[in-house]
Amino acid sequence: MNDQDYMQLAVTEAWKGLGATWTNPRVGAVIVKDGRILARGYHHRFGEPHAEIDAISHLNSLTDAKGATIYVTLEPCSHYGKTPPCADRLVALGFSRVVIGQADPNPIVGGKGIDRLTKHGVVVDNLDDTEMVNEAYNFYYRRKRPMVTLKYAMSLDGKINQAGNNRTRLSGDEAWQDSQRLRQLNQAILVGERTYRVDDPRLTIRSARDETQPLRIILIRDARHLDLNAKLFQSSEPVWILTSHQPTFALPEFVKAFEAPDWSPAAVVKLLSDQGIQSLLVEGGSHVQAAFVAAGLVDKLVAYITPLMIGGTGLSAVTGLGNAHMLRFTSPTIQRLGDDIKLTARRDD
Amino acid sequence: MNDQDYMQLAVTEAWKGLGATWTNPRVGAVIVKDGRILARGYHHRFGEPHAEIDAISHLNSLTDAKGATIYVTLEPCSHYGKTPPCADRLVALGFSRVVIGQADPNPIVGGKGIDRLTKHGVVVDNLDDTEMVNEAYNFYYRRKRPMVTLKYAMSLDGKINQAGNNRTRLSGDEAWQDSQRLRQLNQAILVGERTYRVDDPRLTIRSARDETQPLRIILIRDARHLDLNAKLFQSSEPVWILTSHQPTFALPEFVKAFEAPDWSPAAVVKLLSDQGIQSLLVEGGSHVQAAFVAAGLVDKLVAYITPLMIGGTGLSAVTGLGNAHMLRFTSPTIQRLGDDIKLTARRDD
Repeated sequence: MNDQDYMQLAVTEAWKGLGATWTNPRVGAVIVKDGRILARGYHHRFGEPHAEIDAISHLNSLTDAKGATIYVTLEPCSHYGKTPPCADRLVALGFSRVVIGQADPNPIVGGKGIDRLTKHGVVVDNLDDTEMVNEAYNFYYRRKRPMVTLKYAMSLDGKINQAGNNRTRLSGDEAWQDSQRLRQLNQAILVGERTYRVDDPRLTIRSARDETQPLRIILIRDARHLDLNAKLFQSSEPVWILTSHQPTFALPEFVKAFEAPDWSPAAVVKLLSDQGIQSLLVEGGSHVQAAFVAAGLVDKLVAYITPLMIGGTGLSAVTGLGNAHMLRFTSPTIQRLGDDIKLTARRDD
Repeated sequence: MNDQDYMQLAVTEAWKGLGATWTNPRVGAVIVKDGRILARGYHHRFGEPHAEIDAISHLNSLTDAKGATIYVTLEPCSHYGKTPPCADRLVALGFSRVVIGQADPNPIVGGKGIDRLTKHGVVVDNLDDTEMVNEAYNFYYRRKRPMVTLKYAMSLDGKINQAGNNRTRLSGDEAWQDSQRLRQLNQAILVGERTYRVDDPRLTIRSARDETQPLRIILIRDARHLDLNAKLFQSSEPVWILTSHQPTFALPEFVKAFEAPDWSPAAVVKLLSDQGIQSLLVEGGSHVQAAFVAAGLVDKLVAYITPLMIGGTGLSAVTGLGNAHMLRFTSPTIQRLGDDIKLTARRDD
């Protein structure tokens, strides 16, 4: 086992926090001494101990930490947040080496954890190979806005349904499962008014615990006659309504309405930035997708392609507002999910 | 080396005839004796010797054939066509065993070659593993009509160009090369009137010799004012014009016009069946694609997906005539071609 191998184990730990760390990054840690793994840990959920502290809590004895190496997928923190600084704790316990997967892009932490450790004689090595564990977190602190992912399921001819407003479930079970995981990777999910009305979606993650559900956002031009019987309001995780007309009646506590004359993609992204939301999954419909493409506000695309041809009058996955320039993406990575194909591509900067 | 390995070598031989065998199947042959490969051969081009005969011509001595095994990708013929029957020749030379890749679906040959051989004491084994070498040939004899392949290059959002009638070259060089090979796999290429006018295509295979070019077919509602200066007419391989109004002037010898009130996909396929054409590649535009989808006359799809998003006003790869039922395909096979992704799917029957 070399450094990279131990770090991979730490990455596996980190992913256990999927869907539960909210605005915190997913982090995993592995403690190694004399070629033996002494403990593993991860950040279980927002507000709970960081990965390093969780791993330390699994040591047989705290004295084992003396002279040990800890592999952490992210630079240890150096500030008092919801928990005391991890860097101080690592120094206090006598760790001789800290191997990190990446520096923390959050300016409150970035570089300072490393400084604190080296100042106390701890050797720090950065492998720089765990960026994808917290893709949106990294994006958010570097670009100062949430990472926007467009997602759709489409036929081989780029359609989302047969003519009209009917709902057509295109993709198979495995693709559906994967799209649930995609929701867990995002702090907020957005759908447009037509999708909200036609699909009547819940926008929840079936398998997840209540408190780890993403924020559900709907665009509704006129919310004065909002129907609270819609499925969206049958589970009490937060819902945001972006509207030009506030509802005329009292909303349940978990529903919040934001009023503005026009909710362009830029305005949506600005609101989320201001509210500290790091990631947004745009789930349709095709006009909302088109608006985000036209605004150039698509950072990642996930398309599930199902082996059907719908033909000439089906609705395109992206329809409506045109854009002046084509958006260029990286060559897609491909995954087979049952009979479907998943394409994932990142925007070329 | 086992039977399958030798057959794979014969398959490699067979593919050397790509684009040159016209209505004949591609066939390869390998002659083996005492675990040594004595000769290889293939059907070079329409009208020339069959693969078995070509392989035999490469033996050091005809007496080597005695007691040898010949691997042929297709059942040897038993009839006098442009050449004498291969089965007779194999018997005469004393081959003791003939291993074939598939029986011939052509009713003139099918099963009779095998009968002739076994009747003369030659052992015949059918590995049944070379169907894909002559996919369209097999389809044609089984279904009594040409195999129709739809081909398009599209963006990640299923578009073929930015708004309007302009031409947008989407895919990269490797995908373009592959689409040239796709033309070689088809005996005829069809485009609609709009594609003909906007793209002004040649519809030739750049690398191929003149006599192996596919038949070029264009749908032109009114051919009375056909422009013979179009690029299509600048090379003298056969062109068919399917029209409702014959041109009013003399056409060059390589151009043939067929008149009918309406050239529906069914009418096109009927004409090709009658003319013995085994395979048709439909290259667009989007309205022609839609017509073939609506008619259910798509047997195979090849889509090149390029990592661009065009957005809401781009033209869909398939637009126009709707169809009552979605067409179901096999799960696509995937190939990476530079930055592009090639999806190939066959119609589920």
